[in-house]
Amino acid sequence: MMNYKKYTRQYFMPPERCMDWADKEYVDHAPVWCSVDLRDGNQALVVPMTLQQKLDFFQMLVKIGFKEIEVGFPAASETEYEFLRALIEQNLIPDDVTVQVLTQAREHIIRKTFEALKGVKNAIVHVYNSTSLSQREQVFRKSKEEILQIAVEGAKLLQQLTEEAGADYRFEYSPESFTGTEPEYALEVCNAVLEVWKPTADRKAIINLPVTVQHSMPHVYAQQIEYMCKHLKYRENVLVSLHPHNDRGCGVADTEMGLLAGADRVEGTLFGNGERTGNVDIVTVAMNMYAQGVDPELDFSDMTKICDGYEHFTGMKVNERNPYSGALVFAAFSGSHQDAIAKGMKWIDEKHPDHWTVPYLPIDPTDVGRSYDADVIRINSQSGKGGVGYILERNYGLVMPPKMREAMGYAAKAVSDVENKELMPEEIYRVFLDKFVGIKEPYQITEVHFKQENGITTEVTTCYRGEKKVTSATGNGRLNAVSNALKKAYGFDYKLVTYQEHALTKSSSSSAIAYVGIETPNGKIHWGAAIDPDIIRASIDALLTAINHSVK
Amino acid sequence: MMNYKKYTRQYFMPPERCMDWADKEYVDHAPVWCSVDLRDGNQALVVPMTLQQKLDFFQMLVKIGFKEIEVGFPAASETEYEFLRALIEQNLIPDDVTVQVLTQAREHIIRKTFEALKGVKNAIVHVYNSTSLSQREQVFRKSKEEILQIAVEGAKLLQQLTEEAGADYRFEYSPESFTGTEPEYALEVCNAVLEVWKPTADRKAIINLPVTVQHSMPHVYAQQIEYMCKHLKYRENVLVSLHPHNDRGCGVADTEMGLLAGADRVEGTLFGNGERTGNVDIVTVAMNMYAQGVDPELDFSDMTKICDGYEHFTGMKVNERNPYSGALVFAAFSGSHQDAIAKGMKWIDEKHPDHWTVPYLPIDPTDVGRSYDADVIRINSQSGKGGVGYILERNYGLVMPPKMREAMGYAAKAVSDVENKELMPEEIYRVFLDKFVGIKEPYQITEVHFKQENGITTEVTTCYRGEKKVTSATGNGRLNAVSNALKKAYGFDYKLVTYQEHALTKSSSSSAIAYVGIETPNGKIHWGAAIDPDIIRASIDALLTAINHSVK
Repeated sequence: MMNYKKYTRQYFMPPERCMDWADKEYVDHAPVWCSVDLRDGNQALVVPMTLQQKLDFFQMLVKIGFKEIEVGFPAASETEYEFLRALIEQNLIPDDVTVQVLTQAREHIIRKTFEALKGVKNAIVHVYNSTSLSQREQVFRKSKEEILQIAVEGAKLLQQLTEEAGADYRFEYSPESFTGTEPEYALEVCNAVLEVWKPTADRKAIINLPVTVQHSMPHVYAQQIEYMCKHLKYRENVLVSLHPHNDRGCGVADTEMGLLAGADRVEGTLFGNGERTGNVDIVTVAMNMYAQGVDPELDFSDMTKICDGYEHFTGMKVNERNPYSGALVFAAFSGSHQDAIAKGMKWIDEKHPDHWTVPYLPIDPTDVGRSYDADVIRINSQSGKGGVGYILERNYGLVMPPKMREAMGYAAKAVSDVENKELMPEEIYRVFLDKFVGIKEPYQITEVHFKQENGITTEVTTCYRGEKKVTSATGNGRLNAVSNALKKAYGFDYKLVTYQEHALTKSSSSSAIAYVGIETPNGKIHWGAAIDPDIIRASIDALLTAINHSVK
Repeated sequence: MMNYKKYTRQYFMPPERCMDWADKEYVDHAPVWCSVDLRDGNQALVVPMTLQQKLDFFQMLVKIGFKEIEVGFPAASETEYEFLRALIEQNLIPDDVTVQVLTQAREHIIRKTFEALKGVKNAIVHVYNSTSLSQREQVFRKSKEEILQIAVEGAKLLQQLTEEAGADYRFEYSPESFTGTEPEYALEVCNAVLEVWKPTADRKAIINLPVTVQHSMPHVYAQQIEYMCKHLKYRENVLVSLHPHNDRGCGVADTEMGLLAGADRVEGTLFGNGERTGNVDIVTVAMNMYAQGVDPELDFSDMTKICDGYEHFTGMKVNERNPYSGALVFAAFSGSHQDAIAKGMKWIDEKHPDHWTVPYLPIDPTDVGRSYDADVIRINSQSGKGGVGYILERNYGLVMPPKMREAMGYAAKAVSDVENKELMPEEIYRVFLDKFVGIKEPYQITEVHFKQENGITTEVTTCYRGEKKVTSATGNGRLNAVSNALKKAYGFDYKLVTYQEHALTKSSSSSAIAYVGIETPNGKIHWGAAIDPDIIRASIDALLTAINHSVK
């Protein structure tokens, strides 16, 4: 058994109640997005990316619409240094994109970082030191005042080296391990750094408040953020930035609540790559805005390509259930879900509503390049009439009578249950053909002739166990006449309860399909269908199949 | 580009402010847990589980400690029906475990469900119908009153059939698609159902309020839950249950905030399996409590086995970054993280603190059966001295001088950067041996003799490019004497700045290891190490290696 008593809560509440954010319901505009895929994401990979992979990933991020991209920790390894140099020297950074570099607040690392930046157009220098109680005590063994001095010295050196370089780099400071830091102390450190930088409207500073490790519930983090936002100096010239990790599975909630609490900017990664449980998944946060009618200012319309690129560059997999991007997130196997989705789609066709409200589909899968046929309605033993009918209609143009859809639903489900597998559209169509089309035993019809007088008279030649028979009968229509002839010939006792037919628009031939349902005295309905260019012939074949069904 | 204007917010706020929950900071006791792995989880699999897989999964859930387990939708497929019968007939349900069955509020489905239950000891019959605006309009095309009647009729039939069976099944009702339902209306429907059941303290009813599709932020859901909790009839005899899905990546936050808002019970799955983006991951919610010092009343101490079982039964993968369970969630590749973890572990050894506060590790990995060696400190080009030193100490018993750890860190990092791969402990040890042990070119020592008089006198036989030399010198110790002899012989200019040695406890032999650092006039320190049963010999070999290093 696990010993829960060895743990306690490791976070600190702000000294005042900060719940103004909770009066807002949703994030109503996009924050400044900063991708940290190439730094935080990269440093959490079993095999970090190669130079070429980083260059390709950078291009993908630019294409999605990121305007701020943390490109690494240039002082940390040769590859990271070379990557930044390649971006600068090969002129790969668009004018409207700012690259960000991370550095610890240590002199030789800061100096190496500035060397790596030479010649860059737009850059953010991101300096950090760790401020949490546990890191002060255990790792640095320094006092609050000493830790604050590390931050201030770092901030000063950034300013000095930027002036020496004649550059106008922007600055970012992170009190790393913010979520394990007393908010009053984090505020003191950040304000000391801001006093060095004295940010202006032209050159705002970024104060990044990371969830380095997630220790609290998201509404606690939101209160910490609101507290900081209310008390930071130069607030109007500061962009408050979030950098949530996901140790408690709440990276998205931390981010969204932090934005309600006043933050202006989000650092995260695609699909939540990053240290341990990862960073916040920017795809989810952005698409959450999108799904509520807010422009996320990032473009995920080609999600499949982005997933493929990500998997190729990082060697990681996009989880099948990752919101908006996973392979299964639009899939509906269950009958009731399929039925509701099919009806919701029909509602759109009929009513043209202002907004998307299809049940079980938070967004239209085609918005992110996914398809209804391959990704949404999928058939296994959990499925039912709605899904099976939808597949046959979408793929083969079959519009079955409602009761026949039900029978077909049970038939497909049974095959999937017994064979223990998902059925692809062609397999479902095969079940349809096997079960409802062309059953020619034990009764066959070899010839049919019609005469139109008062009603229709028919002469039907049938065969049963090798024995031929010719029978005449009349009816109010051709199918009715043939049905009467068959009843007369063999004494069948059924009611012809359903007859429908339609042209088959999906196939290139000009065939029609007929569906026939007959009810036997025990109340059971038996179905037959047939496809033929001649609709009369199709209807007779369908009837015969239904009859053969009923006598088996 | 994607068109965000096609979306709007699809949820409804309660008619009154319900933010009392936000005064609580954390979940302070375990809810009633109900696993829906075998139903909701199963119905979202490409290939649903076989009967045997379900039986095995059920046993695993019992072992983890679940007391309520939804076993399926017995009216939905033959396999699900047979599974429940097998559990009952083979007497596989422990006395303290209640099985739960799901049924739509439709007569023939309810009746079939009751057939499946015959002979069960403890059961919850869970009936639902969909209540959201979009489903009422699009799927059922029914009024609010008609939808309410479906729920009431279902509730009545449950009561009637239970009485007829002479059983005391407990009841659960879900207004399915609760998150798309007007809270006042959901309340009206639930209260109508409760009026039928009239739950008592002895036989409480469950009202389950699912996040069928996640449409809002978690604090909105919490307000909906608080509203329901405040106004449900028979509240003291009702267990309010949550069933969050994860469309916005906020299943965990919904659950935790719903619990603060008054809910008593959670339905979810292991690792978040379930429809589309999945259900809430109960592992994460339970372990979040655990990490804050609250008993989750579920046992995940053998997480690896649980992951393996889950993957085997469902065919799904536990994501590498899934909190508490993923392969990478305890991994630290980055140098600063490794260093902090190593220091945090040392802090525990030294100070025996009351609670776990190791940086970057929200919980002790060994609590869930993971190991430091394989899972935490892992070395690639992002790593540094702390991690490399830690690996060599843990695996090979090497306690290098601090400055040498730094040199070794750079050496390992460079190999990983160039070879573009993670280094396993044996590869790191190989780097150590290649770089710092046994460099015998260009200088060799072939013989050493000591005399102890005033200080130590030594006579050293050396060889350089095939040319032998015998040199005598004195020193205040053996190593010092040899060093002086070598300087005399070849005119070396260095300072012997570090000498350390220790017994090698990790290896079975009784060897010792010596580390020597020499500083050359340019300020560079060169290192050598050597392992030998004779500590004198080890120190001399280490010195020679350091010298050979310095002249290369």
